[in-house]
Amino acid sequence: MTITMEPVAIVVGGRAEAVDDDWGGERAAIVLDEARFTPEAIAGLDAFSHIEVVFHFHQVAEEKVQYSARHPRGNTDWPKIGIFAQRGKGRPNRIGLTVCRVLSVEGLRIGVEGLDAIDGTPVLDIKPYMRDFAPRGEAREPEWAGELMAGYW
Amino acid sequence: MTITMEPVAIVVGGRAEAVDDDWGGERAAIVLDEARFTPEAIAGLDAFSHIEVVFHFHQVAEEKVQYSARHPRGNTDWPKIGIFAQRGKGRPNRIGLTVCRVLSVEGLRIGVEGLDAIDGTPVLDIKPYMRDFAPRGEAREPEWAGELMAGYW
Repeated sequence: MTITMEPVAIVVGGRAEAVDDDWGGERAAIVLDEARFTPEAIAGLDAFSHIEVVFHFHQVAEEKVQYSARHPRGNTDWPKIGIFAQRGKGRPNRIGLTVCRVLSVEGLRIGVEGLDAIDGTPVLDIKPYMRDFAPRGEAREPEWAGELMAGYW
Repeated sequence: MTITMEPVAIVVGGRAEAVDDDWGGERAAIVLDEARFTPEAIAGLDAFSHIEVVFHFHQVAEEKVQYSARHPRGNTDWPKIGIFAQRGKGRPNRIGLTVCRVLSVEGLRIGVEGLDAIDGTPVLDIKPYMRDFAPRGEAREPEWAGELMAGYW
């Protein structure tokens, strides 16, 4: 079974290369595909402070995709972890997913801060962040996750 | 530009039809594709309390997909909102995205609670929920969003 998708938007600006840390202050724009959308598609988005962006790690080559376990970031101080128990980009379907701040909504353009996707990244979906979509109940995670994320934003 | 994906897993059990509310207590399993994966792919996942599941609204017909604005759930008490400023399932690329609780990890099977995807749903990605991937800064949303979500879980 194969599912085909077409990007709905593209990331414009921000970082040119995928470097792991310090994404928090990065600013860019998400620009909707003008062939299919009008500003109506993002009407009302400015009432939300944050969006969830689903994007495609388009620069990851198919042969770099992991299907089993590996040390996160190749760091052997951390245990071997299954690809679906970590968020690394070399993953099946190469889907990235991040909550970022909305700075502006103008025409087909959403100004954002803290999106960890590089210039030119194809965007597959944009969803408003609703508080009720946060985890229900307290979130627990292993120690390596906190260590890995320490310098991320 | 077309991006092709193959489901990595399938939702087994839980609700048979997409009904809008009361998803919170729903239990199901996410079962990895045994042709491509071994239990290694989810090694270490049991150390996380929650996962983010990216899935495909496979029962939404292409002609039901919205490209501009509509009243959420067709409710005219709420304003007309762009498809990317709401989370309805009739959206371009038909991507669903939810955080749910991990109940068990056994072999190729992840037992979950509170996943709003029906039996048979193709799963495109599974990511561990890390606290550092929550919104940075306080999240603001319009009133209709809280009203819509009131009975969701």
